[in-house]
Amino acid sequence: MPAESIPAALVLIDCQKGFDDSKWGVRNNPQFEENARALLAAWRQNHLPVIHIRHSSTEDDSPLAPDSPGFEYYAWAVPQQDETEFVKHVNSGFIETGLEAYLRSITLQNLVVCGLTTNHCVSTTVRMAGNLGFHVELVADACATFPRTSYNGTVHDAELIHDTALASLHGEFCEVRTTQDILKPDSV
Amino acid sequence: MPAESIPAALVLIDCQKGFDDSKWGVRNNPQFEENARALLAAWRQNHLPVIHIRHSSTEDDSPLAPDSPGFEYYAWAVPQQDETEFVKHVNSGFIETGLEAYLRSITLQNLVVCGLTTNHCVSTTVRMAGNLGFHVELVADACATFPRTSYNGTVHDAELIHDTALASLHGEFCEVRTTQDILKPDSV
Repeated sequence: MPAESIPAALVLIDCQKGFDDSKWGVRNNPQFEENARALLAAWRQNHLPVIHIRHSSTEDDSPLAPDSPGFEYYAWAVPQQDETEFVKHVNSGFIETGLEAYLRSITLQNLVVCGLTTNHCVSTTVRMAGNLGFHVELVADACATFPRTSYNGTVHDAELIHDTALASLHGEFCEVRTTQDILKPDSV
Repeated sequence: MPAESIPAALVLIDCQKGFDDSKWGVRNNPQFEENARALLAAWRQNHLPVIHIRHSSTEDDSPLAPDSPGFEYYAWAVPQQDETEFVKHVNSGFIETGLEAYLRSITLQNLVVCGLTTNHCVSTTVRMAGNLGFHVELVADACATFPRTSYNGTVHDAELIHDTALASLHGEFCEVRTTQDILKPDSV
């Protein structure tokens, strides 16, 4: 848990029911929900800022289209009244959302990020956050993703896509940590 | 080669001598230079727009710092007078460079991207390009990268990092293609 002297916002990315759709394949990290919930509970208990990023797909047949049942947040991730929400239409939480202006307006420099999916919306948002000068801690076991097929036909399972995505982010755009690290009482 | 009716700019990312430094580890794709050179030669021969993105590191000890010999372009990648250059200080070629404004000003929608490194500056630039609405073809065998060590100590070799990075980009932010595909006479 970040010390009070350097508060961090918890940023939850795309914690929406649409990711339960079978079209995505077999997700990795069955502990994703438990860990993301634990982070959210700790932030709420400590009255630290919580930001929800919600995907509104522009593709009619997407499980994340705004008129699809999958657009709904997971029950555990529904924003409370004092929390902030940004709706995005592309992968990056920073493109056409007002997120950067909001963070600058409240002089918030530190972000703890979790959500779905590790290699797409999480990675893209973390890359932009780091490149825009924010300090990001990305919580590995509070993220998850799905398999990908490469252009040459190679299928990579979700755990490999997740771990290689994190390896490319760690030390370049953010620090990758675990839920346990973040929630340690003496952690910054 | 893109048809004349829908010209694409060739975007070369960070083709700089600093990537020959041993600190990065063993690079994949020994054909990177040959393929990127072939793309550049074709674009020049067809008088299509060429954009060079050059990294100027803000870290004093980086091989890509502006006063380091590694800041220089590879000899084959030195811009010609009628080509455009953008200097960046972070991974994304779109952050604080004027690249987006330039592309909008000349109504250029289509980009063919190659360069270094697949999972860092190439991936970040392609993600932003796709999210900003540009149509991107990313040339797999005209990119290359280096190994990465994950937060949990796992070492992933350069070829795996390269291929998983491409798998995450393909069909989401861009189309991944090969140099041969791009240079086919009837290709768009």
